[in-house]
Amino acid sequence: MGFHESPWDLLRARHGDRSGSLVAPADVDPESKPGYLGGKAEGLATLASRAERLSELQELLYANGSRQGPSLLLVVQAMDTAGKGGIMRHVVGSMDPQGVSTASFIAPTDEEKRHHFLWRVRPHVPRNGFVGVWDRSHYEDVLIHRVRELTPLPEVQERYAEIRAFEQELVDDGTRIVKVMLHLSKDEQRERLAERLDRPDKFWKYSPGDVDERAYWDDYMDAYRIAIAETDTEAAPWFIVPANRKWYSRIAVQELLISALESMELEWPPADFDVEREKRRLAAS
Amino acid sequence: MGFHESPWDLLRARHGDRSGSLVAPADVDPESKPGYLGGKAEGLATLASRAERLSELQELLYANGSRQGPSLLLVVQAMDTAGKGGIMRHVVGSMDPQGVSTASFIAPTDEEKRHHFLWRVRPHVPRNGFVGVWDRSHYEDVLIHRVRELTPLPEVQERYAEIRAFEQELVDDGTRIVKVMLHLSKDEQRERLAERLDRPDKFWKYSPGDVDERAYWDDYMDAYRIAIAETDTEAAPWFIVPANRKWYSRIAVQELLISALESMELEWPPADFDVEREKRRLAAS
Repeated sequence: MGFHESPWDLLRARHGDRSGSLVAPADVDPESKPGYLGGKAEGLATLASRAERLSELQELLYANGSRQGPSLLLVVQAMDTAGKGGIMRHVVGSMDPQGVSTASFIAPTDEEKRHHFLWRVRPHVPRNGFVGVWDRSHYEDVLIHRVRELTPLPEVQERYAEIRAFEQELVDDGTRIVKVMLHLSKDEQRERLAERLDRPDKFWKYSPGDVDERAYWDDYMDAYRIAIAETDTEAAPWFIVPANRKWYSRIAVQELLISALESMELEWPPADFDVEREKRRLAAS
Repeated sequence: MGFHESPWDLLRARHGDRSGSLVAPADVDPESKPGYLGGKAEGLATLASRAERLSELQELLYANGSRQGPSLLLVVQAMDTAGKGGIMRHVVGSMDPQGVSTASFIAPTDEEKRHHFLWRVRPHVPRNGFVGVWDRSHYEDVLIHRVRELTPLPEVQERYAEIRAFEQELVDDGTRIVKVMLHLSKDEQRERLAERLDRPDKFWKYSPGDVDERAYWDDYMDAYRIAIAETDTEAAPWFIVPANRKWYSRIAVQELLISALESMELEWPPADFDVEREKRRLAAS
């Protein structure tokens, strides 16, 4: 049991079969599971079985890293409780930690605030052969900054072009970029926050600020729509992943990573030594 | 099926029941599996079932990180092919990547060479709540540096005290340290290197230098013995983990991490907000 149609095509914000028209979060049902017929039990089995393929492809990427091979950057954006943590644990976690570099971008420090908004993310661009994973990203600077007016609107407007240029620079340097919005419904978020308030082992994940942000839900969806429209490119595409079913969003993101890595068509690096000679030396050692 | 005796006690370089006497790598059979009666099939099952416990404890550590909780540093040292990569993938990889910071210390750069040997490891000391994992470490500077005379011996001799002071500083700052030597036999290493030369998908892991180092095997074992004797402390203990059976070394290191985390006796952080009030606010949002 697996996807009967590729999430890469189905979840892309800019559908090829819609003559390049853009999809907004409002067009996507957070409850849906595009391309997948099975239910939760099958989904968990798919997650487990495809983890091996993902892991294999990631090793291939890593193996090519030492000869200036490409890298992959996964950007994950979402409203609170949408399941970023689960993606990190269950999808990213199935790859070899030696070849994965994760970075989490919370509220900026005073020093970060004094710099250009791209300053703090640049050191986390993955090196050759690595899968970089960003839990939130430079998109915070056009999402919460737009919604909560942390930056004047004209300046936010300029940032979209800066983001396009930045991402193009990464692509030119050999980084493949996959940008994911985990798309949750406002009701489902209420249920998930309620669960955190019901369980003492979840209190630490709860912040009263989470409820404050809910008042701006529609503004956030609008900010996502604009950010996606402004920065979705062939080189750095956006995907809107329905996230009301945690298991679905996990197998969908897993499949997006697999598709991105497969499209690189990598091969195992050839020996840069004389294999037969080394066999003789080893036997004699 | 699990360990019938704790690897923490059995694998410690300084046995409590030997009136503090030290164990050297030469005293440990790389083929053995102390504390574990089962074979490979049971071992794999143990690895899978204990992964959940490790993951749970790591989340507890992470949850406490925001209130200046402790951190854990796992240092892994070994001869080539001893299975560091497998530990990273199968043991470290079962924890949430969001709370794990890994660092790999290969041959130093020119810049690193111009600094004190501890300079390059310091930025990788785990922050509060994190599990830090070092694939090789500052111990390279008293292992290969001693064996291959990359540093004059008197200077190497001084480094042991510097390492003790450095590690004590980390301990005082709330970092628990677990130091592991994966202990492989020279014959088993030959077999593993031979496999790399037989499989084109493994060529990239092979380096002719690996055979060169085999000529110094006994010197390396001696350097390990001295390093362990000089730097094993209650606060930063060494463990010699038999590594001829990959599955055993993995469940052993997994168990060491579990023991270290359990000994911290952490609890879920209490709510720093009014739970009932938040429930009402959430329901109204």
